Amino acid sequence: MQLADTCVIRLPAWLGEWLGKQERDYGDERDCMSMVVELSAENVRRQSGGPFAAAVIDSKNDRLISVGVNLVSESGLSMAHAEMVALSLAQNALGDWNLGRFGGMQLYTSCEPCAMCFGAVPWSGVTSLKCAASKADAEAAGFDEGEKPADWKQALQARGIDVVTSLLREEATEVFRLYRASGGLIYNPGPDPED
Amino acid sequence: MQLADTCVIRLPAWLGEWLGKQERDYGDERDCMSMVVELSAENVRRQSGGPFAAAVIDSKNDRLISVGVNLVSESGLSMAHAEMVALSLAQNALGDWNLGRFGGMQLYTSCEPCAMCFGAVPWSGVTSLKCAASKADAEAAGFDEGEKPADWKQALQARGIDVVTSLLREEATEVFRLYRASGGLIYNPGPDPED
Repeated sequence: MQLADTCVIRLPAWLGEWLGKQERDYGDERDCMSMVVELSAENVRRQSGGPFAAAVIDSKNDRLISVGVNLVSESGLSMAHAEMVALSLAQNALGDWNLGRFGGMQLYTSCEPCAMCFGAVPWSGVTSLKCAASKADAEAAGFDEGEKPADWKQALQARGIDVVTSLLREEATEVFRLYRASGGLIYNPGPDPED
Repeated sequence: MQLADTCVIRLPAWLGEWLGKQERDYGDERDCMSMVVELSAENVRRQSGGPFAAAVIDSKNDRLISVGVNLVSESGLSMAHAEMVALSLAQNALGDWNLGRFGGMQLYTSCEPCAMCFGAVPWSGVTSLKCAASKADAEAAGFDEGEKPADWKQALQARGIDVVTSLLREEATEVFRLYRASGGLIYNPGPDPED
């Protein structure tokens, strides 16, 4: 029996050039998040996926390790949320599934993680999570965020993961509006609406 | 700036041949789970990862769509849990991130999903989740399962996803013992123990 044995997540072709033009101070929390939020807007403009982006920053030397954008429709994989993409590419770049081995790895995301990405954060070994838009902002724009434990922030903090929320929240929420205004698909699983 | 832009999940080379030898009735719930639990044991014997396996079955025609095993250390990706691998390969095989479009897709897993995989289930579009070992069994073997909402089964059922637990639970838990007895690594993120 021959089944699929491989799947691939690949960043959009435009992203390398876009990133090359960024002049950012990756030691500055707001500048890091500003890059991530602008990347989420660029993902909408380029029509490569949902209005979400993320990045992994090494706080020991203020270095950008990886970026991610929502690639669910592009990759054909429901797990290809921006955070999963950024974490996986960081692990790929550093050659280790355990970012905790390096210390001080921070995950920036343009939106509070959904239930899946929340669960993925501790497994990745990052020591910090910084979020822009909130679950309420995403849900107000029509996105389903799933069921996280009510005390999700404390759960991460109890694992030694620092959590910052509402960093450039307004700017990130504005990207959701851009997405809706551009006719972007609110993809939710299930049968086709016309069924 | 040149960052990693691609990551790949690939099933171990031994898996195709192993699967070719299976003579299973994929219309039979216990036979499906038996295959999955034996696959988790084979993943331990072949030393390709943790003692976890999963499969996606199309209940409309009793067809095996994909399998997954834990590939965290093999792939170098913390998200490469058996369920994530099986769901992604099913989506790859069917050419759609939304398995809900096909109807009747079932996810079998040798262990109740961790917090990340729980969150991934609704996004995938499967209509049924069947689990063998429990969170308590995995934790008793030393694995960290993360924080799911207390009412995680009801949360899935409220989304129309049927949940069956403890199907061949003893058999699956026995594989955890095999893993420990074989000296298998209990990988948890964080600094190296010797640090």
